[in-house]
Amino acid sequence: MRAYDIIAKKRDGGTLTREELEFLFNGYVDGSIPDYQMSAFTMAVFFQGMNHEETAMLTKIMLDSGDKIDLSSIPGTKVDKHSTGGVGDKTTLVVAPLVAAAGVPVAKMSGRGLGHTGGTIDKLSAIPGLRVELEIDEFLQQVREVGLAVVGQTGNLVPADKKLYALRDVTATVNSLPLIASSIMSKKLASGADKIVLDVKVGSGAFMKNVDQAFELARAMVAIGSDMGRETVAVITNMDQPLGNAVGNALEVREAIEVLKGRGPADLRAVCLELGAWMLRLGGKVEDAARGKEMLTELIETGKGLAKLGEMIAAQGGDTKVLENPDLLPQAERVLTLLADQAGTISRLHAEKVGLAAMVAGAGRSRKEDDIDLAAGVILKAKPGQAVDRGQVLAEVYTGHEQKGKAALEILKEAYSFGDYREQPLIYGTVTKNGDNRYR
Amino acid sequence: MRAYDIIAKKRDGGTLTREELEFLFNGYVDGSIPDYQMSAFTMAVFFQGMNHEETAMLTKIMLDSGDKIDLSSIPGTKVDKHSTGGVGDKTTLVVAPLVAAAGVPVAKMSGRGLGHTGGTIDKLSAIPGLRVELEIDEFLQQVREVGLAVVGQTGNLVPADKKLYALRDVTATVNSLPLIASSIMSKKLASGADKIVLDVKVGSGAFMKNVDQAFELARAMVAIGSDMGRETVAVITNMDQPLGNAVGNALEVREAIEVLKGRGPADLRAVCLELGAWMLRLGGKVEDAARGKEMLTELIETGKGLAKLGEMIAAQGGDTKVLENPDLLPQAERVLTLLADQAGTISRLHAEKVGLAAMVAGAGRSRKEDDIDLAAGVILKAKPGQAVDRGQVLAEVYTGHEQKGKAALEILKEAYSFGDYREQPLIYGTVTKNGDNRYR
Repeated sequence: MRAYDIIAKKRDGGTLTREELEFLFNGYVDGSIPDYQMSAFTMAVFFQGMNHEETAMLTKIMLDSGDKIDLSSIPGTKVDKHSTGGVGDKTTLVVAPLVAAAGVPVAKMSGRGLGHTGGTIDKLSAIPGLRVELEIDEFLQQVREVGLAVVGQTGNLVPADKKLYALRDVTATVNSLPLIASSIMSKKLASGADKIVLDVKVGSGAFMKNVDQAFELARAMVAIGSDMGRETVAVITNMDQPLGNAVGNALEVREAIEVLKGRGPADLRAVCLELGAWMLRLGGKVEDAARGKEMLTELIETGKGLAKLGEMIAAQGGDTKVLENPDLLPQAERVLTLLADQAGTISRLHAEKVGLAAMVAGAGRSRKEDDIDLAAGVILKAKPGQAVDRGQVLAEVYTGHEQKGKAALEILKEAYSFGDYREQPLIYGTVTKNGDNRYR
Repeated sequence: MRAYDIIAKKRDGGTLTREELEFLFNGYVDGSIPDYQMSAFTMAVFFQGMNHEETAMLTKIMLDSGDKIDLSSIPGTKVDKHSTGGVGDKTTLVVAPLVAAAGVPVAKMSGRGLGHTGGTIDKLSAIPGLRVELEIDEFLQQVREVGLAVVGQTGNLVPADKKLYALRDVTATVNSLPLIASSIMSKKLASGADKIVLDVKVGSGAFMKNVDQAFELARAMVAIGSDMGRETVAVITNMDQPLGNAVGNALEVREAIEVLKGRGPADLRAVCLELGAWMLRLGGKVEDAARGKEMLTELIETGKGLAKLGEMIAAQGGDTKVLENPDLLPQAERVLTLLADQAGTISRLHAEKVGLAAMVAGAGRSRKEDDIDLAAGVILKAKPGQAVDRGQVLAEVYTGHEQKGKAALEILKEAYSFGDYREQPLIYGTVTKNGDNRYR
C-alpha cells in the first residue's frame, strides 16, 4: 500500500477502505508518512469529502491512537458538552454547574483558546487560586464527590488529532466537515462520557458560515456518536454576533456568574437553558427538553447552580468569594470606549472581529506559546437591533496596554455595521438520532 | 504575506497576484515555505486551476529561478521540440536530424526516462561511445558546426521546477494542467530556443487522457510561449497505443534509424513528418506544413537526415557504424514471445501497460537511482486493427533476466484487448497562436 495511491484515490472522489485509512493515519502518527503527503491528502478531502463510513472509521482510528479516560468509577450517566467554538461562548461555566446541580455528573475536559475564540480553561484560570491541571485520579474523585469538574486535558488523548490539527491549521485544511467531525468526536469519545451534547455554532464567528453546513456537520457527529454507542444530540446556535456581552476571560466569568444569579444577557441564558435541558434529557433526569428548561430555571432561582459552581471552585482550590464579589477577579488597568460615530440602528456585529479585538487587547493567543492577559477583553454595550445616538458608547475595551487597546478599538469599530436590521434566530434547531428539528 | 492565506485563496477559487505567486514559489525554493504547505497548495490548484495570467506568471517565476541557456552565438532561428511523454516515442531521434539537415539549427536538451515513459537521453546512451553530457561551450560549438546537438540538461535550469516536480510526484498533484504547462514551458524557455514545437500526447500512455484536455494544455502552453515572445506550436498526437513498434532504448534507436532510411512503422513516420514540418515552418524554411513534409520526405529519400544523425553521433564521440549495422547496438540475451491465446481482431493496445512491461523487462526506471538495461524492451508484432490467429506472435520481450522477462510478458498480455476495433486518429490537430485546428 502506498500513500500516493490513497491520496490519488481521494483526489479522484474515491471511497477509502478501513485498511487505507489505517495505513495513512497510523503511518502519519508513527512518522512513516510525511507531512507533505498528509497535507495534500487533507486538501483532497476538503474538495472531495468523506462519506459517513469513512468519517466514522477515521474517528475510530484517531480515538485508538492514544489514551481513553475511564469514567466508570463515577455512578450515573455522565453527559459531556462541547462547543465548536465561538466568541463570548461561556456556556460551560453556566451549564455544567446547573446540570451537575440537577444530579447529572459532569466530568469535563476543556481546551485553551487559540485565535479569535476563547477556551474554557483560560476563563476558569481567571478565578484566583483555581487549579485547572488535575491528575486523573483527583479529577475522578472530585466528580464522584462534587458531581462536577472542569479541567484541562490530562493524559495523551488522541495524539493523531493533535498532530493532524497542527498541520491542517497551517495548510488551510481545517475547514473540512469530515475532518472537523472526526477531530471533535474522537476527542469527545476519548474523554469517556456516556452521552454528548454538541453546540454547533454557525455564523461569522464560527467554522461553519451557513446553517445548512452546520446541520450537516451536526448530523455527521450525531451519527458517529450513535455508531459508537454514545448517544449524541447537537444544538445549532447563532454565532454571527458574540454570545452575551462579555468577551475575555475574567469578563466572561463575571457574566456567567450573573446568569447563575438569574441576571445577565437573555441570549446567553437562552442558549445555556437549551444546552442544559438536552444534557438533563440525555442524563435521564427529564422526559423532554421543555421540562429540562423548567428544572434549570428553578436551579437558577434557588441559587443551587451557583452553589454548585462554588463547590467546584473550592474543590479545585479557587477563591469562592468571587461569586459574591466579582471584583476579586483580575481587573484591567485601562478601559477604552468605542463611541458611535453616527446615529442609527446596528444591523450587524461581526463576531470574528469582536473576537480579534479582544485577542488584540490581550485576551487571546495568536500562537500557542503566547501569554494572555486574563483581565483583558471587550464589553459590548450595544448589539444588533438596537438604535443608538451619535456619541453613545457601543463597547468598552479592557486592557493593560494603551496601544493594544487602541488597536483593539480599531478592529471593534469595523465589527459594527449600521442599517436595516434583520433578526436572526438564536437557536436554529437540533439534530438527534431521530433526525433534524429546525426551529423555524 | 502568509503562505496560509495564499493557499486559502486558491482553495476558495481566487486568482493569485504576481506578488503572491512570487512569495510562495521563491519562498519554496529558498526553503522558507515548507513542503507541506506547497503540497496543500498544489492540491488546491489541482481542483481550482489557474487562469492564463497566473500560469504565465508562474512560468516566469520558475524560469527566473535558475540559469538560462544563451543560444545567441548560433546563427539562424533555433527551433526546439518537446514531447509531453509517451511510450515508444523516439521522434526526436528522427526529427532533430531531419530538421537540422534542412538548415534549422537544433540545440536540444533532453531528459532521462522515469516510470513507463522513456527519455531521449537514455535512448542516445545506447549508441556505443556517444557522450550525452556536454559542457555548455562544447554544446554550443557543436550546434554551430554540425547544426545539431542533443544532450542531457546542463547548468542549473529551473531549480524551482526540479523541487516542485519531485513534490508533486509523491503527492498526486502532477496531473494539473497549469502545473504541467508551467513546468514544461519554464524548461523550454530556459533552454533558449527562439521557437518551440510541442508534441502533446493524449491517451492511455499520456498525462492527458482525453482530447479536450490535451487541446486545453496545448492552448495554455502556446499562449505562454507567445507571451514570452517565443512562437510556439503544439501538435496533438495519439498515445493510446505506443508509437511505432519498438519500446526500449536500443530497440528504439534501431527503429528511428529505419525511419531515417525510409522504412519503419507508418505511424511513427507520420508523426515525425508532422512535427518536423512545423519546425521547418517556424524556422522559416517553408511557407506551410505541407511543403515542410515534402522537404522532410526528400531528406529521408536522399539519406541526408541519416547523414546528419551520423554527424551528430560522431561529434559526440559515438560509433557511427551503428547506422549501417544496428546489431552493434546493445543486444539482449533473451527474447521471450507473447502468443495470442485467441484468434480475433486486436481492439486496443494499452500504451501505459506496454511501457510498464518494457520497464519491468529492464528498459526503464521506477526510481531515479535505478540502473537501466539499454538492450531491454518490447517489440510489438501486432497492433490494433490487425486480425491474428491463435498462437500468432503478438510481441517480443527483450531482457537480460528470464524472471523479469516473464513478469513483463504478464503485463504485456494485459495490454492487448480483442474485439471490435474503432480506428483512432493518429494526429488530432494543432494549436497555433491563431487558434485550434482540429483535423477531424
